[in-house]
Amino acid sequence: MDTIEQFIAEVKFNADGLVSTVAQDVESGEVLMLAWQNADSLRQSLTRMEMVYFSRSRQCLWHKGESSGHIQKIHSIAMDCDGDAIVAKVTQIGGIACHTGRKSCFYRQYSDTDGIINNADIIKDPKHIYNTE
Amino acid sequence: MDTIEQFIAEVKFNADGLVSTVAQDVESGEVLMLAWQNADSLRQSLTRMEMVYFSRSRQCLWHKGESSGHIQKIHSIAMDCDGDAIVAKVTQIGGIACHTGRKSCFYRQYSDTDGIINNADIIKDPKHIYNTE
Repeated sequence: MDTIEQFIAEVKFNADGLVSTVAQDVESGEVLMLAWQNADSLRQSLTRMEMVYFSRSRQCLWHKGESSGHIQKIHSIAMDCDGDAIVAKVTQIGGIACHTGRKSCFYRQYSDTDGIINNADIIKDPKHIYNTE
Repeated sequence: MDTIEQFIAEVKFNADGLVSTVAQDVESGEVLMLAWQNADSLRQSLTRMEMVYFSRSRQCLWHKGESSGHIQKIHSIAMDCDGDAIVAKVTQIGGIACHTGRKSCFYRQYSDTDGIINNADIIKDPKHIYNTE
């Protein structure tokens, strides 16, 4: 068994065959996004050293950046103590992980005066990321 | 509706009423753990400003640190673009988040030569954390 399969064998996928994966900017430490991986997307990620997720809405593999160009290059990847979560430290190409055009997806912050505030600006209009215009 | 309920109303809990929550060290940026929250654990977290999770194995609220003393003090908490994941920036009291006695749960790192390597030392023997001796 090669090392990729050794790693995957230790992951405890849920009943749907998925594991929660966090992508973190290797330089800033900012948490960029949380998505899901099945065994094959994890295998492809470790083979390419670029993040490949499993899209629950589309029910297919999703090579992050395939339409936006915002590839995530993997520096390291680790599972947690009980093997049911993964953190990947990545270089986020284009500096944008979120489909809203922000660096991180985690921009909707709790505020004890306003409920929710947006804590990050849109870097690039999604229309220009996905060429929908 | 108060601001805590405004925030919770935007969270998209899954079919089990849960959302994935990442705890991140506010100083170092290290991802400490990933666990689950239901609406009530999120409500209690934002009220106390200390992390309260929902234990899927025990099916009850879990005030992190209740037995170990390793409380997580919340600095900020934010949900992602689609509201189905949360990141909490915390101060980890005792510097240990993992039940194995390590700072972070994410110590089982992929290695292309060994499959998995442990990338972090045990800071404190769990026997001494949980007083099981």
